[in-house]
Amino acid sequence: MRTINVGLIGAGFMGKAHSLAYAAMPMFFWPAPAVPHRKIICDVTEEAAAEGAQRYGFDESTADWKRVVEHPDVEVVDIATPNHMHAEIARAAAAAGKHIICEKPLARTAEEARTMYEAVRDAGVVHMVAFNYRRTPAVALAKRYIDEGAIGELISFRGTYLQDWSADPESPLSWRFQREIAGSGAVGDIGTHVIDLARYLVGEISGVNAMLKTWVPERPLSAGGADQLGTGRSAGDAPRGPVDVDDEMITMLRFSNGAIGSLEATRNGHGRNNFLTFELHGTEGSIVFNYERRDELQVCFASDGADRKGFRTVYTGAPHPYGEALWPIPALGIGYGETKIIECHDLFQAIVGQEAVSPDFGDGYQIARISDAILESSATESWVSVPPLETTPGRG
Amino acid sequence: MRTINVGLIGAGFMGKAHSLAYAAMPMFFWPAPAVPHRKIICDVTEEAAAEGAQRYGFDESTADWKRVVEHPDVEVVDIATPNHMHAEIARAAAAAGKHIICEKPLARTAEEARTMYEAVRDAGVVHMVAFNYRRTPAVALAKRYIDEGAIGELISFRGTYLQDWSADPESPLSWRFQREIAGSGAVGDIGTHVIDLARYLVGEISGVNAMLKTWVPERPLSAGGADQLGTGRSAGDAPRGPVDVDDEMITMLRFSNGAIGSLEATRNGHGRNNFLTFELHGTEGSIVFNYERRDELQVCFASDGADRKGFRTVYTGAPHPYGEALWPIPALGIGYGETKIIECHDLFQAIVGQEAVSPDFGDGYQIARISDAILESSATESWVSVPPLETTPGRG
Amino acid sequence: MRTINVGLIGAGFMGKAHSLAYAAMPMFFWPAPAVPHRKIICDVTEEAAAEGAQRYGFDESTADWKRVVEHPDVEVVDIATPNHMHAEIARAAAAAGKHIICEKPLARTAEEARTMYEAVRDAGVVHMVAFNYRRTPAVALAKRYIDEGAIGELISFRGTYLQDWSADPESPLSWRFQREIAGSGAVGDIGTHVIDLARYLVGEISGVNAMLKTWVPERPLSAGGADQLGTGRSAGDAPRGPVDVDDEMITMLRFSNGAIGSLEATRNGHGRNNFLTFELHGTEGSIVFNYERRDELQVCFASDGADRKGFRTVYTGAPHPYGEALWPIPALGIGYGETKIIECHDLFQAIVGQEAVSPDFGDGYQIARISDAILESSATESWVSVPPLETTPGRG
Amino acid sequence: MRTINVGLIGAGFMGKAHSLAYAAMPMFFWPAPAVPHRKIICDVTEEAAAEGAQRYGFDESTADWKRVVEHPDVEVVDIATPNHMHAEIARAAAAAGKHIICEKPLARTAEEARTMYEAVRDAGVVHMVAFNYRRTPAVALAKRYIDEGAIGELISFRGTYLQDWSADPESPLSWRFQREIAGSGAVGDIGTHVIDLARYLVGEISGVNAMLKTWVPERPLSAGGADQLGTGRSAGDAPRGPVDVDDEMITMLRFSNGAIGSLEATRNGHGRNNFLTFELHGTEGSIVFNYERRDELQVCFASDGADRKGFRTVYTGAPHPYGEALWPIPALGIGYGETKIIECHDLFQAIVGQEAVSPDFGDGYQIARISDAILESSATESWVSVPPLETTPGRG
Repeated sequence: MRTINVGLIGAGFMGKAHSLAYAAMPMFFWPAPAVPHRKIICDVTEEAAAEGAQRYGFDESTADWKRVVEHPDVEVVDIATPNHMHAEIARAAAAAGKHIICEKPLARTAEEARTMYEAVRDAGVVHMVAFNYRRTPAVALAKRYIDEGAIGELISFRGTYLQDWSADPESPLSWRFQREIAGSGAVGDIGTHVIDLARYLVGEISGVNAMLKTWVPERPLSAGGADQLGTGRSAGDAPRGPVDVDDEMITMLRFSNGAIGSLEATRNGHGRNNFLTFELHGTEGSIVFNYERRDELQVCFASDGADRKGFRTVYTGAPHPYGEALWPIPALGIGYGETKIIECHDLFQAIVGQEAVSPDFGDGYQIARISDAILESSATESWVSVPPLETTPGRG
Repeated sequence: MRTINVGLIGAGFMGKAHSLAYAAMPMFFWPAPAVPHRKIICDVTEEAAAEGAQRYGFDESTADWKRVVEHPDVEVVDIATPNHMHAEIARAAAAAGKHIICEKPLARTAEEARTMYEAVRDAGVVHMVAFNYRRTPAVALAKRYIDEGAIGELISFRGTYLQDWSADPESPLSWRFQREIAGSGAVGDIGTHVIDLARYLVGEISGVNAMLKTWVPERPLSAGGADQLGTGRSAGDAPRGPVDVDDEMITMLRFSNGAIGSLEATRNGHGRNNFLTFELHGTEGSIVFNYERRDELQVCFASDGADRKGFRTVYTGAPHPYGEALWPIPALGIGYGETKIIECHDLFQAIVGQEAVSPDFGDGYQIARISDAILESSATESWVSVPPLETTPGRG
Repeated sequence: MRTINVGLIGAGFMGKAHSLAYAAMPMFFWPAPAVPHRKIICDVTEEAAAEGAQRYGFDESTADWKRVVEHPDVEVVDIATPNHMHAEIARAAAAAGKHIICEKPLARTAEEARTMYEAVRDAGVVHMVAFNYRRTPAVALAKRYIDEGAIGELISFRGTYLQDWSADPESPLSWRFQREIAGSGAVGDIGTHVIDLARYLVGEISGVNAMLKTWVPERPLSAGGADQLGTGRSAGDAPRGPVDVDDEMITMLRFSNGAIGSLEATRNGHGRNNFLTFELHGTEGSIVFNYERRDELQVCFASDGADRKGFRTVYTGAPHPYGEALWPIPALGIGYGETKIIECHDLFQAIVGQEAVSPDFGDGYQIARISDAILESSATESWVSVPPLETTPGRG
Repeated sequence: MRTINVGLIGAGFMGKAHSLAYAAMPMFFWPAPAVPHRKIICDVTEEAAAEGAQRYGFDESTADWKRVVEHPDVEVVDIATPNHMHAEIARAAAAAGKHIICEKPLARTAEEARTMYEAVRDAGVVHMVAFNYRRTPAVALAKRYIDEGAIGELISFRGTYLQDWSADPESPLSWRFQREIAGSGAVGDIGTHVIDLARYLVGEISGVNAMLKTWVPERPLSAGGADQLGTGRSAGDAPRGPVDVDDEMITMLRFSNGAIGSLEATRNGHGRNNFLTFELHGTEGSIVFNYERRDELQVCFASDGADRKGFRTVYTGAPHPYGEALWPIPALGIGYGETKIIECHDLFQAIVGQEAVSPDFGDGYQIARISDAILESSATESWVSVPPLETTPGRG
């Protein structure tokens, strides 16, 4: 079994999640497509990077991301930095012939994402964007039902991603509130996850009509500058800085296949934690999902007898996607880690098999165009069309 | 205790619900503001009306609604007909000096509703539109929390009304699918209920931006013509007629106070029965309601300690609105009837106390304007403003 | 259509619920088996009775229950008094040839219940005990699934009835806390409801093994003595009296058919309101019910495909028991009243059709024997057998 | 930071879960008490062990568990075998001076467990039984609330552990159905998890009164003999062997502090997957937990205002037990792995700090006594007392 070396850039929350995936993937998927080896990790200082290496099990550490990209032993570059660094690193990694997994959103803007997409396409490397939620087994089960035609032709999608960690106006001005670093607010941070699910499950989005709101216009400056995790919650009498991104987004959606939909994303909804949900109506049934109860998928089949029709709560397990690899009994419990372990598996499968994997930078680019369209729509108070991606991405 | 005679026009589903309310209201609210007496009932034929009288406990029956309106003993005219008859009856009843309760939506169009509103205002009678869901105790409790400031300043509203009774393309072309009779489809039939809740809880709606869809463009003609209940489910090889109203509506909302929102209404969502829900975010908390579990209100207070914060599921009972009048223990069970019994109480209270009651024809008119704006918005694919009602309705 | 006169004894919570049923039954069930007429009502004082007549729509009133029993126009005597009066009234009513509906539990003890059972059997009248919860449509649907064999052979039953209205030690010493009046505590008051469901759904109970606890040994004496509703919540510095009944009961159950089970009933479970639940396991499926969400029945069929198996949440409506009579769309909302309206229908059907109805006094007697066995089991700390009722009850 | 070598015996489901914990623990808990190093793994054949080493990241492998116990570099022996091997291995490991973590149940019988308990006590090593569910953050939060007195004095506990993987009579006769290997059925396999929770949250259990049932008396012999995971689901026309353990257990519980309770465990409840639940009533509140929705704890405080009382659904995160170590936002998702990662942390903390850890072999022994009492109670159809453990375990 082949061992593949990974270089990870960013030792925050996402660095932790990805490191877990590298360590655990072969424990779950066996035989594994390849064994990930944690070669080198990069963080903002040498000290932080060295600590990250010890904590997350990497051989080497550095404060210079270029060393990761140029490392001769590294086959896969994992970009887990704040958004503003994605593009430069990805382009350099592609130029160095590395396969790339990049955290979401792919970039701050569609233009930036386009450069990344073109770079990986031209370099012929494997590329993936870490929209991990579509790899929740229950979401993959929804996809299976849809592909089987079990709920008929899709007509309506309603998605939400509601959180409350920024509802407190005293939570600090992390990088996630700064357009220069993040690109946008709820749109890019969490809305893009739902856009990914919508495209995965329903099909291409052809138009949006959106409203954005910034409910907390300024926030205390964090003590130490940009907060890697973006969830620092303490504040003080620190001076304040402006929030120049959206706190909340509502948009209507049009799909190319005629379905319609809506999407709401907010980080100011008290009591909602990671309330990533969707409801799908088809001509022959419906599907409902709530990530907060991610072991479950609700599905209603119109073909059930009139006196037995209702949403079934299916707990995912062995008979469902990825089930053989995970835990032997449903509801033993899928956590965040499992979504990343599956993501890691699919990436390595693609590398070893020299296959495409989805969502890739083409998807990430298209999602960035949809995000930009949402911002434009809110500004112009009108529908904005999103043309389809001209060419499908491939290996060169 | 005063007895007040009622004349009911329409012996279908709504006639049943209202008759129950007249019989039961004093059993629940005691001392009652007045005792409703079921004087005369009208339905499409003499036979149907006579049967309605026996079934629903009315003294007299007729197939001519004018007899009800002109009946010297009748103080309250109750309009429970299909939508296209509301205006003419209401204007006649107002002219006859009768108090009026009219089923929702008030009329097929804003213009039609305006004539009704002006008629009752000029006549100085008590008038009410039967948007009964705001009288669910849990909804009234949400209003109480909001009025107390318990969830702070409202910023976001998300409402749905999802049903599935028209998902079957073989369900017949009842009057609810015909613009000439119904005015609109999901917009007027169920969307207006949510609009009523939004205005009740959040405040005036100042603009909409909507999409409408008709998923089933033609349906079998029902055997006996218009179906009073609109829920006839059987069909056959009958010839088909066109559906010229919407099956599904999605709209974004702007409120005068700066809050934003969205609303989806469909009758084609398999597995959803009477899924009337809302989620409200305020700066100090959130409220969530689902009528399918109507004994419960979910509320989250930001002021709860960090380690104890979460949605509380409050079962409504004695300490909550209308609680003393209903059942002695929470979750003994609020049904559809109770919402109508409360509505009846509030109407009679207004009549006896010579007070205004809400929602009245002014509200019904304004909701019709919002409905019209939704239709216009869908047609023009743009935001449509809704100016506030010029004058508040009163008793002359 | 025949009119049948009713005499109601007890104008408290249950009097209200039954009055509603008499008024509303034909509105729901049409054609009705007969039209109930509210002839005479009895309460503890003439004033209370007169007020009850006005409030609940009875022609006459009295403070002497014998007047009801002996009233020549009364065909049905409805016993809605505290438990200690059931037996004497029922025997007198039977002797007078009246049909009888009696609130649950049938009596304070099995011995008392036996005299009632024998009286009605000998008199040949129709008799019913008001265990209304089995008439919740979702419960009747569970029965239908079981009878169809849809969940196979039943192996396990787990029931709960959890409330919290007596958790507050300052809630007053109503009659429900006094053995002389109530017979027992949670056992008779709420436990018997679950026993009725267990016998209805699973079959005869052959043995019990129980624990009882009285958590609050004394309570403030209520101001006005016995509290008809038993839910008076205010108290003061009043002197206290002893609670000589159980607050909580846990029992194991053996069924004649080999199934096993458990049952917990408490009135001291904070946060539980009317948490009447059961979970049934069969060899081919499972059924779960929670009255707090009574529009829903959860059912799992083992025969569903491995990748689609899960509990279905079925909202009861037209295709389900009593559905045609109730509301046209599922989740419009079944309340407490509907269970009583259905109960009333089935009683009148039995009277008109000269049929037996279930649960009858034989069931009530057998449930009283099971209750007595529970008390004995707790005292002796051992299993107590319950022999089957010797003869099935009938009309003479 | 110290590195501590682990020897793992058993490469099945539990071997996988523990290996994940060793790899991931320092990623979550940082600084970690020590870094676990996966030194040697043992499985039934050399091939299986070698594959386990590669898959789970161990340096060495063996088919002889004595090599693990005697390995000079191994500090911690991890026993993840079927139950019948626990005692011999544990005694040998204790004799070799190794710290021990042993999967649950500790042994097949109390007598066997006693020998293990005495061995580790005499050896002065750290010892732990892997009842991992008490380390679910929501369960630990329940414990915190209880310890804070937030729900008052505990009066009632109701636990369930319902699964359905043995409901199919064609599922093979794995070791979990054989008394010689497993000791008991649902009692030891899953019931003990709830007993651990009951003792952890409420206190010592002083008596039980139980019923056991074996619903499927014989099963197909598995192809390859004992099935390590015990969840093999395929079968064929293989010959059948007898099931000599229980499929289902119901027991009543008495606690030393006066609380009462019940417990049901089954592996034959269709639709239940890993339905480990408890409901706790205290004099000042209630707590409800369902592992299938393990991110959530429901708690009701009696002190909440009458109009705001209800179960709060608290999603565990940073402010809750272990929260700082896990994921930065509640409902990102706790899975099965996280419970094992926390367990690993607490074990290593105890080793490094030379502290006791709970649950230890004393707890495991006491739980085995309770299990034996349950079996005896079922056989004798009577209450069986369980005396408290004479001496608390310690480090010598």
